[in-house]
Amino acid sequence: MTEATANIGVVGLAVMGSNLARNLASREGNTVAVYNRTWARTESLIEEHPEAEFVQAKSVEEFAASLQKPRTAIIMVQAGRGTDAVIDQLTQVFEPGDIIVDGGNALFTDTIRREQAVSAKGLHFVGAGISGGEEGALNGPSIMPGGSPESYETLGPILKSIAAVAEGEPCVTHIGTDGAGHFVKMIHNGIEYADMQLIAEAYDLLRNSAGLTPAEIADVFTEWNRGELESYLIEITAEVLRQVDARTGKPLVDVILDQAGSKGTGVWTVQTALNLGVPVSGIAEAVFARALSSKPAQRAAASELPGPSTPARVEDRDAFVEDVRRALYASKIIAYSQGFDAIAAGADEYGWNIDLGSVAKIWRGGCIIRAVFLNRITDAYTEQPDLVSLVTAPYFTEAVAGEQDSWRRVVAHAATSGIPTPAFSSSLAYYDGLRAKRLPAAVVQGQRDFFGAHTYKRVDAEGTYHTLWSGDRTEIEATDSH
Amino acid sequence: MTEATANIGVVGLAVMGSNLARNLASREGNTVAVYNRTWARTESLIEEHPEAEFVQAKSVEEFAASLQKPRTAIIMVQAGRGTDAVIDQLTQVFEPGDIIVDGGNALFTDTIRREQAVSAKGLHFVGAGISGGEEGALNGPSIMPGGSPESYETLGPILKSIAAVAEGEPCVTHIGTDGAGHFVKMIHNGIEYADMQLIAEAYDLLRNSAGLTPAEIADVFTEWNRGELESYLIEITAEVLRQVDARTGKPLVDVILDQAGSKGTGVWTVQTALNLGVPVSGIAEAVFARALSSKPAQRAAASELPGPSTPARVEDRDAFVEDVRRALYASKIIAYSQGFDAIAAGADEYGWNIDLGSVAKIWRGGCIIRAVFLNRITDAYTEQPDLVSLVTAPYFTEAVAGEQDSWRRVVAHAATSGIPTPAFSSSLAYYDGLRAKRLPAAVVQGQRDFFGAHTYKRVDAEGTYHTLWSGDRTEIEATDSH
Repeated sequence: MTEATANIGVVGLAVMGSNLARNLASREGNTVAVYNRTWARTESLIEEHPEAEFVQAKSVEEFAASLQKPRTAIIMVQAGRGTDAVIDQLTQVFEPGDIIVDGGNALFTDTIRREQAVSAKGLHFVGAGISGGEEGALNGPSIMPGGSPESYETLGPILKSIAAVAEGEPCVTHIGTDGAGHFVKMIHNGIEYADMQLIAEAYDLLRNSAGLTPAEIADVFTEWNRGELESYLIEITAEVLRQVDARTGKPLVDVILDQAGSKGTGVWTVQTALNLGVPVSGIAEAVFARALSSKPAQRAAASELPGPSTPARVEDRDAFVEDVRRALYASKIIAYSQGFDAIAAGADEYGWNIDLGSVAKIWRGGCIIRAVFLNRITDAYTEQPDLVSLVTAPYFTEAVAGEQDSWRRVVAHAATSGIPTPAFSSSLAYYDGLRAKRLPAAVVQGQRDFFGAHTYKRVDAEGTYHTLWSGDRTEIEATDSH
Repeated sequence: MTEATANIGVVGLAVMGSNLARNLASREGNTVAVYNRTWARTESLIEEHPEAEFVQAKSVEEFAASLQKPRTAIIMVQAGRGTDAVIDQLTQVFEPGDIIVDGGNALFTDTIRREQAVSAKGLHFVGAGISGGEEGALNGPSIMPGGSPESYETLGPILKSIAAVAEGEPCVTHIGTDGAGHFVKMIHNGIEYADMQLIAEAYDLLRNSAGLTPAEIADVFTEWNRGELESYLIEITAEVLRQVDARTGKPLVDVILDQAGSKGTGVWTVQTALNLGVPVSGIAEAVFARALSSKPAQRAAASELPGPSTPARVEDRDAFVEDVRRALYASKIIAYSQGFDAIAAGADEYGWNIDLGSVAKIWRGGCIIRAVFLNRITDAYTEQPDLVSLVTAPYFTEAVAGEQDSWRRVVAHAATSGIPTPAFSSSLAYYDGLRAKRLPAAVVQGQRDFFGAHTYKRVDAEGTYHTLWSGDRTEIEATDSH
């Protein structure tokens, strides 16, 4: 009989799973059991990494037997049916109290469903969002586990041992029950879409309006990376822009086909936010911008559509660069504000008690959107746990106030110059909508009441009203929403 | 035994169902059987409308017996479980060859599912989008039926008898099989959201930048309604703006609470377009604008956020009004272009053979977005059935070319003035993105390859590539998308 020597197991040994298993094995106190559907992969991992001293398992039964109780196993397989199959297998060999962790990119509603099914059998199920890609899995990811507090007592210390460390703190926290972790990971990815798109728009303005070369823009970004925009994404964008293509001698960015792909989490974020009634326009515009870029037939047909008759000119290049930097920062604040709104709304809808400040904290390291800036978000939610909108926190209000003239100039410039800045523009429109004392939504309500008798409320009285538009146009009180 | 005297039946006699039944009964050649779950409603409809000579049914069996074969019944109940229940009842008393029509606002994927279940029993199932609200149901709606061509042979003439008539043609056409009708109705509603939001933004600019009163804006809209913007929505917006509140003597629009509601079809449209990879940014911004308006706590907290330090001034009021008109028209073209893209993509995905020109044609009457403008869309698709984007049709290209300087000025003005114009801005950004010869999507692909090894394609060679960013930064050919 196999001896139960491992305190943690990993199922699924493709790159992400192998790297996570190696990361686990490299930390003091961990003994890691590994299992993969095909033995060859387990074998080669063990051969290539003898230092890890993996406990090998040829069957799921052997895997279970090798784990100390409560057994704790992290599933790292492709999201979808593969995950369900592995869960099925594990629930057959695990016992009540054991912990099954899905470390894949599951849709949070799948995680909620799986948690119900697994916990009904007395086992714990944890949906853990793991961010940072292959390198993060190996060296320290940001981890967003959702599950029972009880399971986190066992799992937490293990995850803390492998997570990225930011300013001395491991980038992992118990997000909430069932689907909370995968939900927060989804929103992280949505914010990442917006952040990337905003940086791409800044690049486009510097390139096409200010006439900077990719190498010059790389220098600008490196400079920006020393200030409030400091972030992994700004840093790597500078690296990408500095890269010269060996084949042609051109900047690499000029030989990369300008059609952006995606893996679907941006779409999930926007669809979920739509269900929750949260305007995440920055993320939506970023997702749409990628979709638009990937329509070569439409773009070819439209490539000769006329632009502005007299494009705006950049008179002072340095001033313009500074305007773009400020516009980027203000837009970024809005994108994060919308993203955190979506987390708050999700927590409300699904009954999760999510500490938004802690979420910002664990994103400071290991994940793609890591940035010092996230400390400001943590501060904002620490000072005001019931903050209704990030941009209304004093620090962010002041930041936007300081940048907004630049922001407005850049968006106006883009409009008159014919440079597409969907995310910059949308963020500004959101900001102006949010702060508007009156919105033309009153006109929309009037239209809806006219054509569909959908009723409206009044600013000066309780109740719901309808004007008899096709009658004598008097107003009546409606008994219920029509 | 009941005699089969009716050629058409209606199940569900709330306002929409009653009105549709009365409409059917008022047309020569129709004898209409009516059935409702509770008899009282059937009874009062029959009593109040003796002129309709309804054939009454107290049970679903009696209802079936009263219908000539092939039996044809239109279900007008609230979308969801109610619809499934009625379908169950009808399939038990109907026979192979009979036709069940769902005239409610079903989600098209539900319609696809129902069509499969019903057709498996040898019956026809038609999902018919019916637009025009209560008044349209009574006097002539725009009807979008999806189902088998065979069922349309029987159903088509009946629907033609009750549909709205535009320029001599009934506003109904066979859209495609199964869910095609409800899909097209959904997109219709999505476009309606964008159209309404664009009009609301135009109002906001005229009100807050040009300083026009609601009554003056009503006059402007009435004037616009004589030109290329002529549409039902412009017409009724003028009516709404002209309305004076009896209680306060103020313009009604100023006493209507500025929080816009929605029934969910806008959300469906955007979620579906996201699945299809179609950027419907105008519709999304309209949906988000309503969501934003309905967040009183956030808006209250944000109402003191600072606006621009020096808002743009309108120097020439008439010129500004004309600029806004042109901006509205250009933005509207983009919103419709995106909407028709979504229909084309849906047709592709679900195997529907949808004639886009005919869709525009049947929207000219009966529905909320009815407008002469739709003739231009029909013309565009008639001239070029394989048109890849509406805005690339010569008429629309020229229209946008003529309006774009105004459009750009208005969007720039809104940005510098602090007036939120999410839909105007987003439409312009989309236009500039579509026509861009190079998009910064290349930067996004570079970022994705850097942090996730997601690979990229090159403009000058086949294949998929990856730069060894954490290695020696040479480029390798990737065997498959990572």
